[in-house]
Amino acid sequence: MAVTDIATRTYDHGFRLDPIVRSLLDTDFYKLLMLQMIRHLYPDVQATFALINRTKAVRLADDIDEGELRAQLDHARTVRFTKKELIWLAGNSFAGQARIFEPDFIAWLAGFQLPDYDLRRVEGQFELRFAGPWAHTTMWEIPALTIINELRSRAATRDMGRFTLDVLYARAKAKLWDKVERLRALPDLVISDFGTRRRHGFLWQRWCVEALKEGLGSRFIGTSNVLLAMDNDLEAIGTNAHELPMVLAALADSDEGVAAAPYRVLDDWRRHYAGNLLIVLPDAFGTASFLAQAPDWVADWTGFRPDSAPPIVGGEQIIRWWQAHGRDPATKLLIFSDGMDVDSIEATYRHFHGRVRMSFGWGTNLTNDFRGCAPDATGGLEPISLVAKVVTVDGRPAVKLSDNPAKATGEPAEIARYLRIFGEEGRSSLPVTV
Amino acid sequence: MAVTDIATRTYDHGFRLDPIVRSLLDTDFYKLLMLQMIRHLYPDVQATFALINRTKAVRLADDIDEGELRAQLDHARTVRFTKKELIWLAGNSFAGQARIFEPDFIAWLAGFQLPDYDLRRVEGQFELRFAGPWAHTTMWEIPALTIINELRSRAATRDMGRFTLDVLYARAKAKLWDKVERLRALPDLVISDFGTRRRHGFLWQRWCVEALKEGLGSRFIGTSNVLLAMDNDLEAIGTNAHELPMVLAALADSDEGVAAAPYRVLDDWRRHYAGNLLIVLPDAFGTASFLAQAPDWVADWTGFRPDSAPPIVGGEQIIRWWQAHGRDPATKLLIFSDGMDVDSIEATYRHFHGRVRMSFGWGTNLTNDFRGCAPDATGGLEPISLVAKVVTVDGRPAVKLSDNPAKATGEPAEIARYLRIFGEEGRSSLPVTV
Repeated sequence: MAVTDIATRTYDHGFRLDPIVRSLLDTDFYKLLMLQMIRHLYPDVQATFALINRTKAVRLADDIDEGELRAQLDHARTVRFTKKELIWLAGNSFAGQARIFEPDFIAWLAGFQLPDYDLRRVEGQFELRFAGPWAHTTMWEIPALTIINELRSRAATRDMGRFTLDVLYARAKAKLWDKVERLRALPDLVISDFGTRRRHGFLWQRWCVEALKEGLGSRFIGTSNVLLAMDNDLEAIGTNAHELPMVLAALADSDEGVAAAPYRVLDDWRRHYAGNLLIVLPDAFGTASFLAQAPDWVADWTGFRPDSAPPIVGGEQIIRWWQAHGRDPATKLLIFSDGMDVDSIEATYRHFHGRVRMSFGWGTNLTNDFRGCAPDATGGLEPISLVAKVVTVDGRPAVKLSDNPAKATGEPAEIARYLRIFGEEGRSSLPVTV
Repeated sequence: MAVTDIATRTYDHGFRLDPIVRSLLDTDFYKLLMLQMIRHLYPDVQATFALINRTKAVRLADDIDEGELRAQLDHARTVRFTKKELIWLAGNSFAGQARIFEPDFIAWLAGFQLPDYDLRRVEGQFELRFAGPWAHTTMWEIPALTIINELRSRAATRDMGRFTLDVLYARAKAKLWDKVERLRALPDLVISDFGTRRRHGFLWQRWCVEALKEGLGSRFIGTSNVLLAMDNDLEAIGTNAHELPMVLAALADSDEGVAAAPYRVLDDWRRHYAGNLLIVLPDAFGTASFLAQAPDWVADWTGFRPDSAPPIVGGEQIIRWWQAHGRDPATKLLIFSDGMDVDSIEATYRHFHGRVRMSFGWGTNLTNDFRGCAPDATGGLEPISLVAKVVTVDGRPAVKLSDNPAKATGEPAEIARYLRIFGEEGRSSLPVTV
């Protein structure tokens, strides 16, 4: 394991020692799976990603220096996949499958560079957009988020003394280990780290991953972070994201085409991947409508990742749907990954235990839970709900509805149109904290 | 402040990097104050100190390797006061007084060496004795205790992995800082570190002292550890110990002489020291009898350190005595130092606040509270009640009665004699945990 005294290192933070983006593998695994498919099927689609800070009360441009942000973004654009990384991508097995990435894709990655960005300060927030081919802009999502989140952490810790930092990290470690001990009490737990995008910082995420590896043993099945997976011989975990149905819906020329987009994504996907990678993400435009319109073959997929409904409600909805389609839920997999923490993991585990296979993707509350840890009451360490979403596709507006209207993105008129297409059923607003 | 990643250092422990006794100043300040007086008044008295493990359930010789113990004891005998240390002792003010140590004493310290020891294994325990002139053997008390306690900690942590150690110290730091935050709520708190003898280890005590300095500001008045006081520009705290009345009582040729010994000590003491150093330690042979027989001038001293009665009961007893002697308790000082922790500090502070000046000497529960901190249930980290006491003086048996019979030491026949002389009043057995 890596041995780093995080408090000392935070105190010593300097650009050369700790640039935020250290590797293009420091991203979520699903970006690479999606990227390979995007490059095959949609090489000419132009997609613009934009940063969206749902936590409006936090004025990012007041907390983060624009010059530092530009320096980190510029630095990320200088990073390339290294030979070692490409050899590992080519030679490693993912989700039990060898050679999941084709030689042609690996060769293309060798020349990959993050595209340019457009950054403005608007009323205390940053307008940060990435325009260009989807197969390039998609790769900015995770680095953009990790850069903003880590710059925010660094700003919050900048004026802390060496001792305050020592206590801060000691408490955060103690807090996480208490969570680990609670999770140990769940014998059949299957859990992975999904915390890259909203992590406190790279070194801290690495510690968290090592903590789960050490504390949960085989119950910890891996991390979505490809770099940490490589460096720690862990399984890289992930499948696909909302951007796929969002882009395909935006590309559709008719309402029927929009309605069909979520299933076309699955059709694209199963031509590329198999087995455990056949996970449905049902809520881009609402789970109720997705399930109501889904063709029967969707019930043959390995599982679902309900990502915006409350986990027990969302899980029951999918189990009922499997049963209605004559499938045995006990053979199926549910992946819970929306704002989970120990309480909700325990409750969900106990609720579904024995009825369905379960896996948990633990994100922000794993890698950025410093609540109550700062020796002095300091702002800036609470996580915020920051996302980077597709906003336009070949010049057309993109939309996400979600089961939770608080997570919807897109222009109001276009959201209204999507709501007419997919219906209002099953939507309920819940606070989005992380 | 010193920046040491304790988990890494513990993992790397090696003799050359971390001998347990690093300096002859790594002792309690009162040893030096007493030593100067002993050397002046009792240079020819022979006193044997012996290790006494009151926590019989812990078989020290099973946990600690005899060879390692000998190596550490032998190493301590090679350590001398350095020039820098002697210059500091001569030039620094203690308890507000300059030149408290006479040049002649400093010159004598320059040649000081810890005397030889006698070590045997008996039924799972160590019989460890130091025989020789009192002015030499007295200096073994603290190093003997710190060596045994730290060897015990090292044995308990030896098989821990790097990560387990990281969590262990993170939790211990978080635990201590939670205590600091509770103590901050007591605005007039006066507290010092008395935790040298039963500390987990030197580096850990140093961290604890830095934590109190950082967290409590001026409420933290210093440390009994002379080396840490020097290195951190803190006040060295301490006055005198039970060994003074124990030795003088043992030297007495009659029961009357034994009965007079506690007051003779005070008489000796006031010829050497003044002001804040005029602190009465009343319980060597029982506080009730001490107060009943005390001459009126004892009430002119600055304060008392009740060291074996429960703090509120013990404090009230002394306040009543001051009042009976027409002194105003509000001008007097009570120092509480027997097994204190945050709960008892808070309760005692609130009970006496405004009625008497108070100071707390925080010992084992400051520097060795790892209860609940080990990621795996590991024995050997709970503190034990280990002392090094005078057992014979010029061949005669020495006795301590204490207010708590569980803390009594000495041969049964001699204890019975002392009980006849001092009476049974006010004694009640309480469990001794630290």
